Amino acid sequence: MEPRGILMVLSGFSGAGKGTLVKGLLRKYDNYVLSVSMTTRAPRQGERNGVEYFFTDKRNFEETIKNDGLVEYASYCGNYYGTPKAFVEEQMAAGRNVILEIEIQGALKIKERFPESLLIFVTPPSAQELKHRLEKRGTETPEVIARRLARAVEESEGMEAYDYIVVNDDLETCIDEIHRLTDAARRAPVRNKKFISEIREELHGFAKGAE
Amino acid sequence: MEPRGILMVLSGFSGAGKGTLVKGLLRKYDNYVLSVSMTTRAPRQGERNGVEYFFTDKRNFEETIKNDGLVEYASYCGNYYGTPKAFVEEQMAAGRNVILEIEIQGALKIKERFPESLLIFVTPPSAQELKHRLEKRGTETPEVIARRLARAVEESEGMEAYDYIVVNDDLETCIDEIHRLTDAARRAPVRNKKFISEIREELHGFAKGAE
Repeated sequence: MEPRGILMVLSGFSGAGKGTLVKGLLRKYDNYVLSVSMTTRAPRQGERNGVEYFFTDKRNFEETIKNDGLVEYASYCGNYYGTPKAFVEEQMAAGRNVILEIEIQGALKIKERFPESLLIFVTPPSAQELKHRLEKRGTETPEVIARRLARAVEESEGMEAYDYIVVNDDLETCIDEIHRLTDAARRAPVRNKKFISEIREELHGFAKGAE
Repeated sequence: MEPRGILMVLSGFSGAGKGTLVKGLLRKYDNYVLSVSMTTRAPRQGERNGVEYFFTDKRNFEETIKNDGLVEYASYCGNYYGTPKAFVEEQMAAGRNVILEIEIQGALKIKERFPESLLIFVTPPSAQELKHRLEKRGTETPEVIARRLARAVEESEGMEAYDYIVVNDDLETCIDEIHRLTDAARRAPVRNKKFISEIREELHGFAKGAE
């Protein structure tokens, strides 16, 4: 099997625990890296350049778009957000699995452009549990909760486009499961094109020789 | 996740060790069963009805076809071969993974009819190794080996249609890998339609209530 890493897109309902899962994967397994997005929005307090985001200006961002330097990008509230391609490519070539934590529109763009990417959708065990988790935080107003639930409805429409649906019930179990799914994905034909074409070519040679 | 078992189709080059892998899966894990084919060909010495095959006559076989009682069937050297549907359905409903060991044409028919089936293709690490294994048996004439290699060329053309390609290098490793892949497949959306539609419906209800 080819040693190239997997481009793994993690999406899911707000409140499903994506952030904690990503941290868990990075902590428990050594062949994962988190892709750091590039953005034109101003850094918030405590955000460090190159850690939470690569902060840049509009001109540089648009130049990067023109140079095909982004895996995907989107504009949101007047700011650009995108995934720098060079980092993703380098890490995958080094055999590391690159995690992108993005929402469904971005995920679908990634799959279209990189059919060998792996799309994982994280969900709580039930909608009831999702609602419960949002309310339990205690920091959200009823309006915010209502908006998040409305957004969850939209997000749920895209679940079939993902390769796998994982239920985040127990955190450690879920981390291990995502790792197993990423590992399984290495065996898909789309990620073994070189192996397939080599064995095919060699078989052709033998069959000809044996005629 | 739904407790229904997986319909797992195992194909691969002659000499890849499919038979041994199937035996290994049945020995090591308790949630697999092997689908027994129905055929109109006469039993060979030592073959037991219901173990190697269900032996039947042409009339009964054709009646079974007419009653939609087969998952797939094919005619080969004047005899029918097919997979009885009732057994497959019962076992999957009981949460067991059903193994079908069939060649690529049958595998593709299964996938068309049952998109939730899982197609696994087994290959030796290289074409060289495949040739070596065929020659090592010492029982095959050069003509038989040539025919098998020609057939392998054909089979290799269909590898992309499979969900996963597994390399049978070390037997035990390969058995465990097939098990992990089958387990991973349970998380595909196509095998969680009920879960997805339920969470979607429930979210709709909450979003409406929160408006």
